Amino acid sequence: MFERKFMTKAISLSRENIKKGGGPFGAVIVKEGKIVASGCNRVTCNNDPTAHAEVSAIRKACKKLETFSLENCEIYSSCEPCPMCLSAIYWARISKLYYGNTKKDAAKIGFDDSFIYDELDLPKEKRQIPAQQHLPEQAIEAFNDWKKAENKVEY
Amino acid sequence: MFERKFMTKAISLSRENIKKGGGPFGAVIVKEGKIVASGCNRVTCNNDPTAHAEVSAIRKACKKLETFSLENCEIYSSCEPCPMCLSAIYWARISKLYYGNTKKDAAKIGFDDSFIYDELDLPKEKRQIPAQQHLPEQAIEAFNDWKKAENKVEY
Repeated sequence: MFERKFMTKAISLSRENIKKGGGPFGAVIVKEGKIVASGCNRVTCNNDPTAHAEVSAIRKACKKLETFSLENCEIYSSCEPCPMCLSAIYWARISKLYYGNTKKDAAKIGFDDSFIYDELDLPKEKRQIPAQQHLPEQAIEAFNDWKKAENKVEY
Repeated sequence: MFERKFMTKAISLSRENIKKGGGPFGAVIVKEGKIVASGCNRVTCNNDPTAHAEVSAIRKACKKLETFSLENCEIYSSCEPCPMCLSAIYWARISKLYYGNTKKDAAKIGFDDSFIYDELDLPKEKRQIPAQQHLPEQAIEAFNDWKKAENKVEY
């Protein structure tokens, strides 16, 4: 259930982060009414293009809870997640998402969220980053190994 | 330009990683004909749902090159990137992508890549993870701060 205090926290993180040299984005992850972890956009500060607020919060929450699954957790983000972060939310099995600004708001201040959503919607051959398949007959051997592997941890 | 040896390397990483308890995915990042960094899927080993091969390789390459932009780099991945990794490739400004297996191959061995692509294609209200917008009038203040901020590093 939405709790205003958590969104207010995500938003204040997003504002404080600007003063600390980062981008205007913050997120918190909540489990059973308590904040487990938070994150800010530290892309340029940390030389890490994946260090968005949501991805950072997910990494920290998983580390803290010693798990790769955040089932029954909710994420509060100051902005609608970009496709990288939204996909990370899926991979982390987070149950619910609350956000403040939209991807259109982010586009207006120069962030590529909307552009990347559009690119993902295009067929591969029309995207701006060219992609080619090579050596599929070699690559598939890894998946054949995986099928046969014992004691593997699936997720 | 595609070089077979780099794809062979990504594929051998994907196979070796299974023996080390990780998922069957590997990636290498190449700049000016040399490998800058590589990565494997360590999600379950490291309790990090974002530790896919491509994301891991991007983080390492950026750290090594001390930059948040991998312009003029190419990525070789043993499998077509999931939407998280493809978006990370966009955020990192990688110039070209080569891959071996497809997202359909990944789906056949139980990975959610295809499912997440489908989810991103749906309008928000039809996705499996519910998303709600809250407090946009507070959240937008961070973007207003950003517009006014001096010395900010844009990307």
